[in-house]
Amino acid sequence: MKTRVAIIGGSGYSGEELLRILLHHPMVELTAITSRENAGKPVGEFFPRYAECTLKFIQPDVDEIAKLADVVFLALPNGLAGTYARPLLEKGCKVIDISADFRLRDPAIYEKYYKMPHPAPELLPQAVYGLPEVYRKEIAGARLIANPGCYVTSVLLPCTALLRAGVAESEGIVSMSMSGVTGAGRKVALDYIFPECNESMKPYGVTGHRHLPEIEQELAVAAGVSSVTMNFLPHLVPVNRGIHSSILLTPKAGKTAEDALAALHAQYDGEPFVRILAPGKLADTKHVTRTNICEIGCVYDARTNRLIVSSVIDNLTKGASGQAVQNLNLLCGFPETTGLEIA
Amino acid sequence: MKTRVAIIGGSGYSGEELLRILLHHPMVELTAITSRENAGKPVGEFFPRYAECTLKFIQPDVDEIAKLADVVFLALPNGLAGTYARPLLEKGCKVIDISADFRLRDPAIYEKYYKMPHPAPELLPQAVYGLPEVYRKEIAGARLIANPGCYVTSVLLPCTALLRAGVAESEGIVSMSMSGVTGAGRKVALDYIFPECNESMKPYGVTGHRHLPEIEQELAVAAGVSSVTMNFLPHLVPVNRGIHSSILLTPKAGKTAEDALAALHAQYDGEPFVRILAPGKLADTKHVTRTNICEIGCVYDARTNRLIVSSVIDNLTKGASGQAVQNLNLLCGFPETTGLEIA
Amino acid sequence: MKTRVAIIGGSGYSGEELLRILLHHPMVELTAITSRENAGKPVGEFFPRYAECTLKFIQPDVDEIAKLADVVFLALPNGLAGTYARPLLEKGCKVIDISADFRLRDPAIYEKYYKMPHPAPELLPQAVYGLPEVYRKEIAGARLIANPGCYVTSVLLPCTALLRAGVAESEGIVSMSMSGVTGAGRKVALDYIFPECNESMKPYGVTGHRHLPEIEQELAVAAGVSSVTMNFLPHLVPVNRGIHSSILLTPKAGKTAEDALAALHAQYDGEPFVRILAPGKLADTKHVTRTNICEIGCVYDARTNRLIVSSVIDNLTKGASGQAVQNLNLLCGFPETTGLEIA
Amino acid sequence: MKTRVAIIGGSGYSGEELLRILLHHPMVELTAITSRENAGKPVGEFFPRYAECTLKFIQPDVDEIAKLADVVFLALPNGLAGTYARPLLEKGCKVIDISADFRLRDPAIYEKYYKMPHPAPELLPQAVYGLPEVYRKEIAGARLIANPGCYVTSVLLPCTALLRAGVAESEGIVSMSMSGVTGAGRKVALDYIFPECNESMKPYGVTGHRHLPEIEQELAVAAGVSSVTMNFLPHLVPVNRGIHSSILLTPKAGKTAEDALAALHAQYDGEPFVRILAPGKLADTKHVTRTNICEIGCVYDARTNRLIVSSVIDNLTKGASGQAVQNLNLLCGFPETTGLEIA
Repeated sequence: MKTRVAIIGGSGYSGEELLRILLHHPMVELTAITSRENAGKPVGEFFPRYAECTLKFIQPDVDEIAKLADVVFLALPNGLAGTYARPLLEKGCKVIDISADFRLRDPAIYEKYYKMPHPAPELLPQAVYGLPEVYRKEIAGARLIANPGCYVTSVLLPCTALLRAGVAESEGIVSMSMSGVTGAGRKVALDYIFPECNESMKPYGVTGHRHLPEIEQELAVAAGVSSVTMNFLPHLVPVNRGIHSSILLTPKAGKTAEDALAALHAQYDGEPFVRILAPGKLADTKHVTRTNICEIGCVYDARTNRLIVSSVIDNLTKGASGQAVQNLNLLCGFPETTGLEIA
Repeated sequence: MKTRVAIIGGSGYSGEELLRILLHHPMVELTAITSRENAGKPVGEFFPRYAECTLKFIQPDVDEIAKLADVVFLALPNGLAGTYARPLLEKGCKVIDISADFRLRDPAIYEKYYKMPHPAPELLPQAVYGLPEVYRKEIAGARLIANPGCYVTSVLLPCTALLRAGVAESEGIVSMSMSGVTGAGRKVALDYIFPECNESMKPYGVTGHRHLPEIEQELAVAAGVSSVTMNFLPHLVPVNRGIHSSILLTPKAGKTAEDALAALHAQYDGEPFVRILAPGKLADTKHVTRTNICEIGCVYDARTNRLIVSSVIDNLTKGASGQAVQNLNLLCGFPETTGLEIA
Repeated sequence: MKTRVAIIGGSGYSGEELLRILLHHPMVELTAITSRENAGKPVGEFFPRYAECTLKFIQPDVDEIAKLADVVFLALPNGLAGTYARPLLEKGCKVIDISADFRLRDPAIYEKYYKMPHPAPELLPQAVYGLPEVYRKEIAGARLIANPGCYVTSVLLPCTALLRAGVAESEGIVSMSMSGVTGAGRKVALDYIFPECNESMKPYGVTGHRHLPEIEQELAVAAGVSSVTMNFLPHLVPVNRGIHSSILLTPKAGKTAEDALAALHAQYDGEPFVRILAPGKLADTKHVTRTNICEIGCVYDARTNRLIVSSVIDNLTKGASGQAVQNLNLLCGFPETTGLEIA
Repeated sequence: MKTRVAIIGGSGYSGEELLRILLHHPMVELTAITSRENAGKPVGEFFPRYAECTLKFIQPDVDEIAKLADVVFLALPNGLAGTYARPLLEKGCKVIDISADFRLRDPAIYEKYYKMPHPAPELLPQAVYGLPEVYRKEIAGARLIANPGCYVTSVLLPCTALLRAGVAESEGIVSMSMSGVTGAGRKVALDYIFPECNESMKPYGVTGHRHLPEIEQELAVAAGVSSVTMNFLPHLVPVNRGIHSSILLTPKAGKTAEDALAALHAQYDGEPFVRILAPGKLADTKHVTRTNICEIGCVYDARTNRLIVSSVIDNLTKGASGQAVQNLNLLCGFPETTGLEIA
């Protein structure tokens, strides 16, 4: 008996990446993919790469989907995703939300950063933050999972380990991050057409990107402090996929790269989707594109007494849909790597 | 009467960029371009783009070149450039060195970072650091000019103004920088072939890049302190040309983005090759590629009390050969923008 | 006394390229740039790269523009450009139309390929086809110039010479062409966002691209025949700028590569913007990007008895705005290369 | 009992692609990977992406490898591969050669195009051409398989069907093809460094590329004629992976696109790795990268009476290592798609 899954919002990049993975996931049956704009059109025609898919896009009708699926992925714009969660939960579906709607514990912070009231604040208490390497147990028992942001995942995986182990201070953290253009979604806007992105490198949102409060929220948990305040500097660079974060942290007194690497190994050895690099090595996005792996390197700069972490993921896989499937596996009791071995 | 100029080391990217500019410089005659490997071959055949060039590459014979040129550009590997400077100076040529050989005041630091003894330490006292916006007067009277590094220029232009004006502290500066692949030179190595660079983002040299001591040396001068220690994190991204630096500085007590922008305007209004962006705007490399312009934006992050500077140049133009021609213009008493209006 | 010029439709890529060139053109004063969407906004803010431009975008008011300009460039969508031509001509302006509206002699063919009635068929008799290497004299005396298509220019320059000289047959010509993405204009559509173009190679319009009848029309003129029918296969590849055409022609009996190269040299030696490569050499778009040059190589395949021509231009320069300025120079009696030396 | 396989020449792009696929192939055990240069180094260190691989590179010792493997992939330079085949066959291994050494039936043609004597002409009679869609039965019983060239596969799959079905003439075929840069191998040469390839489109080898005689040989077989002479025009474009071939064929009298598509469907419906597009659709490399699929579109141009075929593959997968694994599957009696479902 396969688990029946549906994708609401299947025509964007996260939806396409879910399709890529789920088509070959041995424990699930993909029963529905929605797209308002493309309803009625064969999925395999819209995505010629996945011509083997025999489904047609349908309208996002909650009643219909609740009949077709046990678990539903929401790959929708922020604000919209949240409105689907309650009816789906009420009808007995489990929900994995790839949008930002259930990531922030505090709806006031959501409103501040997303410029709209939270669409379903009453559900926040039951939402579990879907970073499996940190919240594995909670995810296994959850009904509503808030899949983490892409930049966020690249920063949290290394920093959580360093903060938990008491290797680094939670103050003064800086992450300078770069993202490929799929990070903006399949967004048809002047800024994202090829000639505007190609041969360009530019920062954006350096004083208040939406992923900032999400990173700070989880770093505070990891450090066991009430709050963390950091600098997060995102940049757009001309690649399709991949996120690189270069993170500066101040080591606690006497701690060095060896301690940092030891902490990373202690937390992640045995994790199927985290790769800690050898001493002195730094990460490269091309090592992880189209995989669910986060690759992490860490060196120590004695001159400035800083740990320098280099962390890479694929923004659509470990940064979105791959991690969502990892969460699905936990939720359903499948081996955690199912369907993600190659992806 | 045109000034006669020669390029020693004309087959690399800096040499090619000098060619691009000098072929249309109205006050100079390009009389010689050397290349050991390509001696005898027409320059216009090696660079089909510059087919109009009627010179042939010659061997780098100092006697010959000294007869042919009043000013000589050295576009050679570090260590080799320095060996050409003395004989050229002795024969009466002025020298603009695009390599790193005369940038660092202290030959011991050179030896530490470049892993070789300094090739001509006795010339260091007369070398002038060729950043025109800072050392214009000294350049005008110099005989040996050390053209600044590419990353260095992108960091120094904004930071010098902020430090000089007392807007920012000289402690705790962080620059996270990205460079296009021409920044590595026309280097035939596995790391730089297309499939290894394309769809890749990676840091390198994060604890001791060669440009680090050069930046620190000049920031100390700007701040009027004995030394500056900073973090400089370079990254390689898949574009041909361009450098972007995101720089974090701590403002002096009470200083904000307005003060920073005021200091930048105070120092650079009137400068032909520095563009200060409007409040809130950040720089984009595609605004400056193939120009000699440094574009600078600056915002203030109240949450962390940091100034965030975004600074872009073209690594081959303002970061190398364009700046070298700007230095030539100063050296020869030409209007500073001659030949650089479009470039 | 400078010639006053205006650009109608200044916010697209052709408009931007006109701006790049005209800002440094010593014989013209750019007096107006229109953009419906951006009217009132400083041009230098919309195009940070051209911050030096002190104009603001204005509405495309014909009366106003006719007062401000002697020559007007139309950088507008097909169909719309044609509606501006008559009133501008009536008010005494000369018009250089970068759209397709006046390129085809036969309005019925225009209607067939552009899927709309011709906007101003009564002006066709006075329109001159603006390919300077072929129609130089006519251009000098024209009041309305139809600037050629980008693909078209890359095919016509080599083929015209070969057909005129009787080296090649006008039957059976095949051009497989590739264009960079700016060839689609600054068009905000899903097909042109970065992740859809990057790492993609695809043909389109292979049985009836709009540039096909334009090529065939002019090849027939060159060959002195009533009509030419050919295969034209355009492809989109992930570069910003550049067009490459690989063209197969059947040589007339006994003609070889030597004859073809001789014909190319005979027609183009002395032309400032055509570069004929040495025997055996093929063209590369990177040799001509941002220049007004067409680079042409030609080899002979004895096995199949075909001439293989390789022809490259920059689609925005020689393929659009550079050629438009070349036409302006002819129109105004300026030296033909004015303002185009570097570009 | 898994089949034991080895890769000789494992540090290039074909070797890496074999690794990607074989690491997840459920029926084989990868027992050895050789690399002269990297012998002794862990494979997972050389390819951080495949860190999970626990093998070390070894020297290409035939005795050793013959003990370790039942089937050996040769991912070596042309000429070298051939020298390994005989000893491996003699020791009982089956050999799948990804080089060109056993593709051409006639060693004289090999010598002409590869500029060296054939390394093992005596083995040619037993070599089977490894295009499974055409030679499936022969492959199943073979001991030495000549894996087809990348360009070749993209041209042969559509054309074989059209020629066999009598839809198209074997005379006058033209293929204009484009390849990504991995097609050149992991070759460290000036032409392939990032800044030389990026923003460049260029043809090469247009009168005698090495893949030409291979295409012609197999087209002659398909057409049942003694020889075929065609034009094959390869181009290099700035993508990592992918080949696109635009192919012109003359239909036999009265044949149209419908007949062509019918012939393609007749031959390939049921084939797991060939996708025939709907009428009017053309292929795009991004639909097939990292898959073993050949996607084919076909339209008819009535004006010129030509069939225009658009065919894409991934040069490293269906164009090299994926097809090699497909051959392995046939050779070993595994389901043909084993290990290639996602790849």
